[in-house]
Amino acid sequence: MTKIAAIIGGGVIGGGWAARFLLNGWDVQVFDPDPEAKRKIGEVLDNARRSYPGLMDRGVPAEGQLTYHATMPEAVAGAVWIQESVPERLELKQKVYQALQAACDPDAVIGSSTSGFKPSELQSCATRGNQILVCHPFNPVYLLPLVEVVGTDQNDESMITRASDILTSVGMYPLRVRKEIDAHIADRFLEAVWREALWLINDGIATTEEIDNAIRYGFGLRWAQMGLFETYRVAGGEAGMRHFMAQFGPALEWPWTKLMDTPPFTEDLVDAIANQSDEQSGHHSIRELERIRDKNLVGIMRALKAQDWGAGALLNAAEQSPGPVDTSGLVETVRRVVPLDWTDYNGHMNEARYLQAFGDATDRFMEIVGCDAAYIASGGSYFTAETHIRHVDEVHAGHEIRVETYCAQGAGKKMQLFHQMFSGDLLLATGEHLLIHVDLNTRQSSVPGDAVAAKLGSIADAHAKLDPPQGMGRAVGVK
Amino acid sequence: MTKIAAIIGGGVIGGGWAARFLLNGWDVQVFDPDPEAKRKIGEVLDNARRSYPGLMDRGVPAEGQLTYHATMPEAVAGAVWIQESVPERLELKQKVYQALQAACDPDAVIGSSTSGFKPSELQSCATRGNQILVCHPFNPVYLLPLVEVVGTDQNDESMITRASDILTSVGMYPLRVRKEIDAHIADRFLEAVWREALWLINDGIATTEEIDNAIRYGFGLRWAQMGLFETYRVAGGEAGMRHFMAQFGPALEWPWTKLMDTPPFTEDLVDAIANQSDEQSGHHSIRELERIRDKNLVGIMRALKAQDWGAGALLNAAEQSPGPVDTSGLVETVRRVVPLDWTDYNGHMNEARYLQAFGDATDRFMEIVGCDAAYIASGGSYFTAETHIRHVDEVHAGHEIRVETYCAQGAGKKMQLFHQMFSGDLLLATGEHLLIHVDLNTRQSSVPGDAVAAKLGSIADAHAKLDPPQGMGRAVGVK
Repeated sequence: MTKIAAIIGGGVIGGGWAARFLLNGWDVQVFDPDPEAKRKIGEVLDNARRSYPGLMDRGVPAEGQLTYHATMPEAVAGAVWIQESVPERLELKQKVYQALQAACDPDAVIGSSTSGFKPSELQSCATRGNQILVCHPFNPVYLLPLVEVVGTDQNDESMITRASDILTSVGMYPLRVRKEIDAHIADRFLEAVWREALWLINDGIATTEEIDNAIRYGFGLRWAQMGLFETYRVAGGEAGMRHFMAQFGPALEWPWTKLMDTPPFTEDLVDAIANQSDEQSGHHSIRELERIRDKNLVGIMRALKAQDWGAGALLNAAEQSPGPVDTSGLVETVRRVVPLDWTDYNGHMNEARYLQAFGDATDRFMEIVGCDAAYIASGGSYFTAETHIRHVDEVHAGHEIRVETYCAQGAGKKMQLFHQMFSGDLLLATGEHLLIHVDLNTRQSSVPGDAVAAKLGSIADAHAKLDPPQGMGRAVGVK
Repeated sequence: MTKIAAIIGGGVIGGGWAARFLLNGWDVQVFDPDPEAKRKIGEVLDNARRSYPGLMDRGVPAEGQLTYHATMPEAVAGAVWIQESVPERLELKQKVYQALQAACDPDAVIGSSTSGFKPSELQSCATRGNQILVCHPFNPVYLLPLVEVVGTDQNDESMITRASDILTSVGMYPLRVRKEIDAHIADRFLEAVWREALWLINDGIATTEEIDNAIRYGFGLRWAQMGLFETYRVAGGEAGMRHFMAQFGPALEWPWTKLMDTPPFTEDLVDAIANQSDEQSGHHSIRELERIRDKNLVGIMRALKAQDWGAGALLNAAEQSPGPVDTSGLVETVRRVVPLDWTDYNGHMNEARYLQAFGDATDRFMEIVGCDAAYIASGGSYFTAETHIRHVDEVHAGHEIRVETYCAQGAGKKMQLFHQMFSGDLLLATGEHLLIHVDLNTRQSSVPGDAVAAKLGSIADAHAKLDPPQGMGRAVGVK
């Protein structure tokens, strides 16, 4: 298949589509009369290039060619996908389709990014209704997989299948909407939440920030992985979805939202939901779903922790302050529990996480000798030059690990550390690390500041009086 | 402060509270007349122990004592926090408060997990209204930080502050609700979405699974980190929140949801929202917020990818199949872009991620010699015994890296690999790894199967004819 996509209308959404196709190896031909279009699409592309390709562990295809065109016929020449993201005015969209259809391949898909119009409205003045579908994406289009695909009986099944296959091939999730409806599916939920939020602000109950916190510290974390019904299936416990609904059915008549026009809560509706939920999630027990949910939540929350944002920033704020340190003997530099997201499907700690724990131990040791955040901000730090890890035993998620650190060298530009990782008394691994002090401006080696040099030297002197730990100074495979 | 919490009513919510306090070092005293309470709370605790402590990088306090008590007065003895999670029947809750208040410390906080009752209703027959607050958590209570704290004018400010401080000290986020309202804040959104979802199923527009996918592949990922208003602030672009509202204000009169009772969309309401949004997010530019959002999304999606769930499972399905491999020379075992979540605040790849990439290279090499998923499922695999990494140069997020692998040894139980990581022609790092073949049932070393041994041997023989790469066989610090 020729991989050429035409982007009709740039902006945040059109630019996102351009990035999605380009970064999946498609050539992209843009038509947008806005004189700022190049700049705007360029900015979206910058964001996309730094975030999208790294999502994949086996790399992405070479980026396609991006070209800008002065007319719609030029932009659609050779295109098998045409994405319309022009402003939300029906008569404008209909005019655009007439111009597109006069020039484009009759077999090309014309997808509309519209959230406000139904496909029957888009097709109503078209030369070939079959060719036009709603393909409604979510911002940022280059990262979020969801696309709502909505057609009418004017669309051949083969056209909808082809559109879905192409969307899948660029890493998206085409959600086929069974019947056209105002605002499709996802935006109906967004609109309901938006309306309720306006009431809460209108009535002085909550601010925008409080509402955002009510979402991102609670159900937002659940919905990133399981959505509404699977979450409630878990909440219902072994008693299941029917039990959950029996509990919350009566609430439909209560003023738990200002949005009071509720559907009739009949036995038929309960049956439909319980059966659909069984089909969706019934292959997992509730216990399994709980564990999947928790592992997902740990992964999401720790990902946010690394960014110091949202629920992750709360975790960072809740970290215990380190207590006083005795540096005369081996220094305890890590004491933590192996997190769920550090383990493989068997529950063993992954290889790379040993180095992460040793890296944390090194960071803590640096902090102890005064190479802390303030020192680093002033322009100096230690960089790891070499690492030697020996794996001795295995450890599972949920177990406490501890790292004890021996300072083998601490003079001039060099710091050499030997970490031993234990679970209880059991030695799990050792990590030998040579670090070099670096001037962060020149990125060249340099001597540390006096205070750091003095503290590091005193620890190295104290440790020189200890028996050196077993296993230092060896090459790989040498006993 | 005495760290004793009384849990009145177990079950999923009470059990979650028990876990939250215990794992933060509190002693927990449970009252629950359900003969199954011990088992139920035990199951919640099992889930909590495997997921919560690992969230923290500096460890958690030693777990508190868990005790079960036959009466409410015994359970509340010495408690400074009393959490009520009994069934949602007002007269039952009021009776429980009378019994609690006859026995408990008058300064203890009595928090109610209720979602259905307002604090004024809970306080109405109480001996001391001041002591009773709504503290409404979200399931799973041991992981999700949100607690809605709702009081009335019967509550002293100092009581609410103390409650909030205690909740913060156990890693939660107390969201102080300004005025009591049915269903508090978050559940009003859940109720609105639930009502809309019931309509969609009732009308045959979507199934439970389609609705969940519409959430978790789209706005659920956004809401896990930014909520509703900050997301829309970004969507509004440089034109800001006021522009966003001008665009979506008219939609309030359109049938974009079945929930049509909307607030008056006045200038005052627009001002309130725009000003609150400025206060909440105005210290970041829209460009900054976009980049924060994208980095968060990459972290969340890659966390889900590691669990092969939700949006992460879609990413795995979209991975490219590896092409044919030439093993006569160095073998290309990794070609990928450095992901955003592998980098530090300066955008450099983190130390531990070098080993992650080398680990991926080893996994790919194992696959090439036939030690693939099917072979591993049959009971054999290679485990890393030792690793030696030399850091040569730095690399940033968004850059492509490539690993070329030399097989230095491949006979008997041993496999020795030397990986070189490049960005273009620039050598970034080397990784030397000794792996031992292991019988996964006995966890003891063993020889590989014949096919693996033959393939590995043939590559080792071919590579023996190459010049060995520079830097093999060295100990840390040896040139």
